[in-house]
Amino acid sequence: MKSRERFLCACRGEQVDRPPVWMMRQAGRSLPEYRALREKHGFWEVMTTPELAAEVTLQPVRRFPIDAAILFCDILVIPAALGMEVQFTPKLSVSPVVRDRSDVDSLKPAGALESLAYVGNSLRAIREEAGEDMTVLGFAGAPYTIASYMVEGGSSKSFHKLKGLMYNSPDTYDSMIDKVVDLTADYLEMQLESGADAVQLFDSWAGELNITDYRRFALPAVQRIIERVSRKGAPVIYFLNGVGNLLEAANECGAQVLGIDWRVDLATVRKRLGDSLVVQGNLDPAVLFAPSDVIKKKTNAMLNQTGGRGHIANLGHGVMPDTPISGIETFLAAIAQWAEENQ
Amino acid sequence: MKSRERFLCACRGEQVDRPPVWMMRQAGRSLPEYRALREKHGFWEVMTTPELAAEVTLQPVRRFPIDAAILFCDILVIPAALGMEVQFTPKLSVSPVVRDRSDVDSLKPAGALESLAYVGNSLRAIREEAGEDMTVLGFAGAPYTIASYMVEGGSSKSFHKLKGLMYNSPDTYDSMIDKVVDLTADYLEMQLESGADAVQLFDSWAGELNITDYRRFALPAVQRIIERVSRKGAPVIYFLNGVGNLLEAANECGAQVLGIDWRVDLATVRKRLGDSLVVQGNLDPAVLFAPSDVIKKKTNAMLNQTGGRGHIANLGHGVMPDTPISGIETFLAAIAQWAEENQ
Repeated sequence: MKSRERFLCACRGEQVDRPPVWMMRQAGRSLPEYRALREKHGFWEVMTTPELAAEVTLQPVRRFPIDAAILFCDILVIPAALGMEVQFTPKLSVSPVVRDRSDVDSLKPAGALESLAYVGNSLRAIREEAGEDMTVLGFAGAPYTIASYMVEGGSSKSFHKLKGLMYNSPDTYDSMIDKVVDLTADYLEMQLESGADAVQLFDSWAGELNITDYRRFALPAVQRIIERVSRKGAPVIYFLNGVGNLLEAANECGAQVLGIDWRVDLATVRKRLGDSLVVQGNLDPAVLFAPSDVIKKKTNAMLNQTGGRGHIANLGHGVMPDTPISGIETFLAAIAQWAEENQ
Repeated sequence: MKSRERFLCACRGEQVDRPPVWMMRQAGRSLPEYRALREKHGFWEVMTTPELAAEVTLQPVRRFPIDAAILFCDILVIPAALGMEVQFTPKLSVSPVVRDRSDVDSLKPAGALESLAYVGNSLRAIREEAGEDMTVLGFAGAPYTIASYMVEGGSSKSFHKLKGLMYNSPDTYDSMIDKVVDLTADYLEMQLESGADAVQLFDSWAGELNITDYRRFALPAVQRIIERVSRKGAPVIYFLNGVGNLLEAANECGAQVLGIDWRVDLATVRKRLGDSLVVQGNLDPAVLFAPSDVIKKKTNAMLNQTGGRGHIANLGHGVMPDTPISGIETFLAAIAQWAEENQ
């Protein structure tokens, strides 16, 4: 099977010759060719220049036997498109922060999608170079995660400003989320129209909510986006980091595929959500620092939990910057070998 | 009932007049009287000076209607006692890091317990001032969590150096853990002999492991400590942050009480582990930033999940530095009111 067919069949839970595989954050600092390119070009420049974004997107596909290229971009383009200032150095800063109704009113949806046109151009360039047999993935951040940066002004450990806004002014919170939902749905539709075969929603921080708050403050926005984007007929993958406590609720999101972080094993996920669920994941990315025999053993254990059915092989979180290339190669070789022996 | 009787009865799952309550990190930056004291004394000075440590330990007991005072100290006294240098400012640093066998050999258990004698003095001062009716709690970090700082050299998001050591040199990892286990067990025994009624093991980071790695690399050390300390006849509370994915394994630790973080609800915990389990927790500390009606509603919801049986009321993580005092007061009043109406 060609990569694209393998990937899209797996998303529908259909029989494939081996589980398709890609790695979250496969493009980026773990690759020497990326670091070389970044010596000449800034992060935001790479992201917004279609030829550079396409080049970086395709670097891992050229190097590794993987089944999908994922757009090189950042989830914070959404607050930026709504008029916020996003700075990545010296540390992440998103400003001015959203704390009340007037801050929400200052977010500017008009022209926001148009300002993201470069992403469409990147995807067309990626498809052009990748050809018809390669899967091309788009993505966006899920609204709760995006909102966390908009309210906290950057990274947070406790999210108490965000949660404070949720509890004290739920209407204000909702109106901020509405703007993020609308733009994100438009943005993902545009990605699908520009060459993406499927899109992934990254919910990096909703795992910090208990299930009651998740159902009230995070899940509905995800459902609304997926409901809209699904009309295009393309698969949506929902990756919720820390999904273990929220499995039953997350499974109501409407996505074809649930991305599972490494903290919960796939056998548990299938047991709780049913055997027909299509899952993506979930080797602990730290395992790529282990000796080959450990990587192989743990990769086999992961694949044995699903039998390779309805399974897009991946890590349970992004590739870490210092990951040895040999660790990635061993992981990918282990999947191919497992498939030869088991499928 | 007096606080100490209420607390110790609840640990055994016996009937009490209302669930006992305390708050993780109740002493410290959230209190103005603590901040005033810290203007004159450094953090390490407060911790190692028994009169100051006792004063800070007792500040929340004087201010709030809570049932336990917890020793003011830090989990990193264990690496410090083993000869490592621990610095808290400008950012946390633990050095020299442990990466191989010779680093483990450099850890010096001889004299380590004696160097922690100030903690015994603090506990005697706390008991003296608190009287016989107040619960006094001691604590230590769980070995996986302590090891994370010893290997990473400070805080980490990915723990890839720690996990790299685990996977590449499990024997070296184990011998480091052995030294931590032995000293921690001695240290907790000393705390119980110095006036503590019960002790809590804080496992802040083991929730970043999947269940296979948790059973191999974190749980056995916890079991060994609890097995030794339990011979003293005092209750042990095991708080594993991110316990939701690991509940069944964590419940094999041997502790009388499981501390539950806010991400998983207590009804789910009881359903999976049995109705007789004694639990501690677990209001999301961010809820203390909410309006009173939200705090009350969420506190009631938490108590209704256990019916107040075998339940030590607490937050699901530490009090955050900026927490409004009024939020803490509302939480405590809600517990008292719930007990009046329901018990």
